[in-house]
Amino acid sequence: MGMTIQLINPNTTATMTERLVLGAQARARADTRILGITNGAGPASIEGHYDEAMSVPGVLRAVGEGDALGVDGHVIACFGDPGLLAAREIARQPVIGIAEAAMHVATWLATGFSIVTTLGRTCVIARHLVERYGFRDQCRGIHALEIAVLDLEADPEALYRALRGACVDALRTDGSGAIVLGCAGMAALAESLQEDLGVPVIDGVGAALNIVELLGALNLRTSKRGDLAYPLAKPYVGLRDFLPERR
Amino acid sequence: MGMTIQLINPNTTATMTERLVLGAQARARADTRILGITNGAGPASIEGHYDEAMSVPGVLRAVGEGDALGVDGHVIACFGDPGLLAAREIARQPVIGIAEAAMHVATWLATGFSIVTTLGRTCVIARHLVERYGFRDQCRGIHALEIAVLDLEADPEALYRALRGACVDALRTDGSGAIVLGCAGMAALAESLQEDLGVPVIDGVGAALNIVELLGALNLRTSKRGDLAYPLAKPYVGLRDFLPERR
Amino acid sequence: MGMTIQLINPNTTATMTERLVLGAQARARADTRILGITNGAGPASIEGHYDEAMSVPGVLRAVGEGDALGVDGHVIACFGDPGLLAAREIARQPVIGIAEAAMHVATWLATGFSIVTTLGRTCVIARHLVERYGFRDQCRGIHALEIAVLDLEADPEALYRALRGACVDALRTDGSGAIVLGCAGMAALAESLQEDLGVPVIDGVGAALNIVELLGALNLRTSKRGDLAYPLAKPYVGLRDFLPERR
Amino acid sequence: MGMTIQLINPNTTATMTERLVLGAQARARADTRILGITNGAGPASIEGHYDEAMSVPGVLRAVGEGDALGVDGHVIACFGDPGLLAAREIARQPVIGIAEAAMHVATWLATGFSIVTTLGRTCVIARHLVERYGFRDQCRGIHALEIAVLDLEADPEALYRALRGACVDALRTDGSGAIVLGCAGMAALAESLQEDLGVPVIDGVGAALNIVELLGALNLRTSKRGDLAYPLAKPYVGLRDFLPERR
Amino acid sequence: MGMTIQLINPNTTATMTERLVLGAQARARADTRILGITNGAGPASIEGHYDEAMSVPGVLRAVGEGDALGVDGHVIACFGDPGLLAAREIARQPVIGIAEAAMHVATWLATGFSIVTTLGRTCVIARHLVERYGFRDQCRGIHALEIAVLDLEADPEALYRALRGACVDALRTDGSGAIVLGCAGMAALAESLQEDLGVPVIDGVGAALNIVELLGALNLRTSKRGDLAYPLAKPYVGLRDFLPERR
Amino acid sequence: MGMTIQLINPNTTATMTERLVLGAQARARADTRILGITNGAGPASIEGHYDEAMSVPGVLRAVGEGDALGVDGHVIACFGDPGLLAAREIARQPVIGIAEAAMHVATWLATGFSIVTTLGRTCVIARHLVERYGFRDQCRGIHALEIAVLDLEADPEALYRALRGACVDALRTDGSGAIVLGCAGMAALAESLQEDLGVPVIDGVGAALNIVELLGALNLRTSKRGDLAYPLAKPYVGLRDFLPERR
Repeated sequence: MGMTIQLINPNTTATMTERLVLGAQARARADTRILGITNGAGPASIEGHYDEAMSVPGVLRAVGEGDALGVDGHVIACFGDPGLLAAREIARQPVIGIAEAAMHVATWLATGFSIVTTLGRTCVIARHLVERYGFRDQCRGIHALEIAVLDLEADPEALYRALRGACVDALRTDGSGAIVLGCAGMAALAESLQEDLGVPVIDGVGAALNIVELLGALNLRTSKRGDLAYPLAKPYVGLRDFLPERR
Repeated sequence: MGMTIQLINPNTTATMTERLVLGAQARARADTRILGITNGAGPASIEGHYDEAMSVPGVLRAVGEGDALGVDGHVIACFGDPGLLAAREIARQPVIGIAEAAMHVATWLATGFSIVTTLGRTCVIARHLVERYGFRDQCRGIHALEIAVLDLEADPEALYRALRGACVDALRTDGSGAIVLGCAGMAALAESLQEDLGVPVIDGVGAALNIVELLGALNLRTSKRGDLAYPLAKPYVGLRDFLPERR
Repeated sequence: MGMTIQLINPNTTATMTERLVLGAQARARADTRILGITNGAGPASIEGHYDEAMSVPGVLRAVGEGDALGVDGHVIACFGDPGLLAAREIARQPVIGIAEAAMHVATWLATGFSIVTTLGRTCVIARHLVERYGFRDQCRGIHALEIAVLDLEADPEALYRALRGACVDALRTDGSGAIVLGCAGMAALAESLQEDLGVPVIDGVGAALNIVELLGALNLRTSKRGDLAYPLAKPYVGLRDFLPERR
Repeated sequence: MGMTIQLINPNTTATMTERLVLGAQARARADTRILGITNGAGPASIEGHYDEAMSVPGVLRAVGEGDALGVDGHVIACFGDPGLLAAREIARQPVIGIAEAAMHVATWLATGFSIVTTLGRTCVIARHLVERYGFRDQCRGIHALEIAVLDLEADPEALYRALRGACVDALRTDGSGAIVLGCAGMAALAESLQEDLGVPVIDGVGAALNIVELLGALNLRTSKRGDLAYPLAKPYVGLRDFLPERR
Repeated sequence: MGMTIQLINPNTTATMTERLVLGAQARARADTRILGITNGAGPASIEGHYDEAMSVPGVLRAVGEGDALGVDGHVIACFGDPGLLAAREIARQPVIGIAEAAMHVATWLATGFSIVTTLGRTCVIARHLVERYGFRDQCRGIHALEIAVLDLEADPEALYRALRGACVDALRTDGSGAIVLGCAGMAALAESLQEDLGVPVIDGVGAALNIVELLGALNLRTSKRGDLAYPLAKPYVGLRDFLPERR
Repeated sequence: MGMTIQLINPNTTATMTERLVLGAQARARADTRILGITNGAGPASIEGHYDEAMSVPGVLRAVGEGDALGVDGHVIACFGDPGLLAAREIARQPVIGIAEAAMHVATWLATGFSIVTTLGRTCVIARHLVERYGFRDQCRGIHALEIAVLDLEADPEALYRALRGACVDALRTDGSGAIVLGCAGMAALAESLQEDLGVPVIDGVGAALNIVELLGALNLRTSKRGDLAYPLAKPYVGLRDFLPERR
């Protein structure tokens, strides 16, 4: 019997969630059931620290609710991995972010990778994650298309051309061997780009889903020893809609 | 004419805010006006990633409201510096976190410092901040009292003894020259400890306030070029109480 | 239709390979076919730089032969990941080492992990891999049982007690949240230890197998752009038994 | 009652000291008294390791004399922070360098900063300080005008144009959000540049003065525990003019 | 009485060994005897991880045989330092790699150096060595001529022009003060280049030989405490031609 | 014809210089002439940042005078390497510090080393050099005897016992394979300790002398391109006794 995995879109644009789920199903095991969850609170897209911070309570609510319902794991499908460690605290089951997933996968395929993302203002978020995850030596560059997340859909062909051009430049400038796509909204283009460019092009959504499957297969869950233990019970003011049922 | 600085307590315990403001006033310039703000949403204390994440929208609301009202700067008075970069995006005026402030100050007084904090589960938060801020070489150890934030008040003498003991151990084990207090709730003890131990004991609340004053004196504000520019305007779902007025 | 994955034991002890395959089958997908390969050349166990270096040509021969036969991926089942980058050069299909696999998995489950390995003299090999893979901040300690690889089998109960004791010590000393087992020969004990200790205990063999499956599912292969491109054709002297057929 | 702070110019050009003091007064608290001290021994300008080393005994003499006279703190106004740790050993009161001060301040205003300095040969000094202070991730580039320190005064308009051009280039190339001026002699231009460029432009002299004031307000002094304790009393040969009175 | 040092060429091209020995003699002490050893097994040139891995057993056999015969030290004359730590395990006498040697020497002559090597695909090998040896801050760039090792001989004048051009570019781009030649096959050009460019140009072969001499003069040998102790005796399968006599 | 090398003792204790020269002669080439130079200005011993800073002008004067007289290189024989980069600027011939020399040599003999030095207050100086030279991963610990430099001579047997004990502790605690002696005054004990402990014990004086010889043999000098170029000519005030003749 397969796993049920929540694919949480941290932004509040439901059409984007739908596309993510469509693309993800093809990348998951046949018997994996993917539950697409659109964040119920927060910005329509996430393009900065503030957007990200405001998306987190909704992400955590989704994680908590799914965990209570018995899902087998969670993917946080925004390249900033918003709320990742907090989600690990409250969930019994594994939680994986797509930036984390894509970067890890890239290191197994090339000695150096490049990230291509949306707006220049989000590059520092990717950069901080690279530092946190330990991939300073492997990440050779972070590049921005200067296309907003919600505009990725506007003109698919123009997007593809821009993305392809940025990837070609990144590979040459950085001397890297693989591309990490720096936005969940680029997932659908990974396969064509990979074929076109002749190098691995990694979409974090597929990568994260497969990592959750992997952890399930290995019977591994977040450590509850130490700093990822369940949060201590304590009084809350406001944000009540966001609080999970007490365990 | 002096500055008006918001001292934001990210937890929702108003009595703690009051004590912070009392202590802070003595450390600020005579003509500085300190506005104590208790977070209107979130946990009663912050002792983990989840607590911290849930405190952030309220912190950001306070920052946004204060900025709209024309305050001259903001201090985020929790040792995890919750929401710091997001706050810098939305505020016109400087925002300083107390962990950041205390660590910076420590490096001016000793070649190595030790952090003494509350619960062991929060050490990783301090550790991640040390890495982010660049003080891997200067921070020689992070130590926990295993006393919860809200229990810091329970028995002041017992707290003092425990804290003093932990500091003495930290100085010896780490070979460090200064102590950084790892919780806003310890601020009141800094002076006695310093006198008692004969080394600098740094309270981040006083440090952060003075840094905001310093930035005001130097006519310096957060850069709005690049990743700390104001957030892009975009539709929001939920969390409406938390959104600042649009500029 | 499932994948066929080579599980290559870099040492030349066939009984160890058999046990590895037995254990691995339970951790792989139902339709994955695992081919256990005992290195045809090299030392009976790998406990140092020299042992490791001497195992590599045989490992590479196995990788090359398997790749020529059309297997879908390769696991190098020794905690030093011997020959990993060279194997990636010659193989069309993914190659994963068990040290690499176990460390990556550990970072998804805890903010810090400890490695427990066999002999003290191998700790530096683990240490160099930690540095190469980028996990300096996440790996909190490397500990040795001082039991030789081939003695791991001698007295299973004594081994379990020793290993359990070392893990308990490591978790406390390092303040870590997960254990990485530092030898393929410890794989069979992972599950009991995990149940016993109440923290994730990660066996790299299962982890690496699942990562190869994941890469297959995502249609990802080693980048042939740049430094992992197929080796240049050139004359060879000696070692002829070790050379793969020319592509 | 305000503080008295020594503003020590490590080079021996008195006219430069005068200008520094003029500019500094406007940036200090109203009741702070600034004592400008021109180094009594050493080179007319500091543009290399040798110049810097030769300036140090005079700097230390000034620190020692000021400390004996009861000043409340010291600023070392050369971007190499010459003699900083030695000065902290001999002084009872705080000592701050302008490179240190400017870099710390920059990290509070932007996630990345650029340094613009005088001659290319001094870049390595800035680079070593960046590494020592921990700002490898935050400092995105170090750029030289190739104008000598004492020529900064020659043609103010040409200097401003050159400096402005270098700052514009640095911001774009480095993707940074703030400018650190890499020479005390550039202090007078900070404000115009800041207005002109629309990003924070940080002059270390003002920054360091305010940090000394901050430490005074917080009742903090250099730790005398460990490596910054007063130097051990010992016989000296030569350099007698440079030795402070024995405490 | 002078030392006898093995100069081991890890590739199997005997003419290259001859040239190396010719050049080396001029750089060694008058009473040093240099034994040129061409690897008896492996590729004709080393330009990647696979080539390197396959060269190692032959290198180790040469080290073991020389050590048994009583030579006083060993140089591994390929810029990837293949088998270095393994060789240190089996040898009683010192073993030095030419990449290691050249990089160490460069740091004594300039605050930053550039590496110029053969093919782009080998740059990552140099990069990994830079990281392992600790010279991230000192190595300012790694550059490739895109000339294959065995083509270095084809047209000496064209090679010199290409190499000279690459060095000039590297010095300017990197802002470095010295050149490290990234291939043993470039050794003969070091002196002319140095005179021509006016900066130190370091050939690792001469550097490594002199370091072995230095260690002999200081009566220093590889530590046999810990991880470089002699390999444990154990059964071997295959590779028998490569195994040293048991001590 | 051999080289003439200045062995500069940065402290002003002539008897220490004499002992250093005696010990050094045995470690240099037969035809090397060693000129012992006692610093003409500064403290009797160097045990802190201030002592070190005050020793530098005298060290630089000695370097400049020796260079003018045509010596072939310089050793700065104090474990803090005082004035090293400044000396490289003014000298035509190579300059090597003993801390630098000892650490480099240690990395060729073991994968990790420990430093044993005199007073605890000097450990931070060693630590900063470890960071500057790039040996964070290789230096496993820095330990202090708490014996002052000038007391090293007082009771040779007691010193030996204390030093031996500290080395044994360091090797065990750090898991290291070699000892670096952290003071020129310990040089005479290196050989006995090495025999006694069975691990390499490295005296920086011998190491540095041999490195200068090595650079001479390889016809290598400090790069005069960039930041180690000769200091710019400029007016000086005071310190006139310390200034070299103008080139």
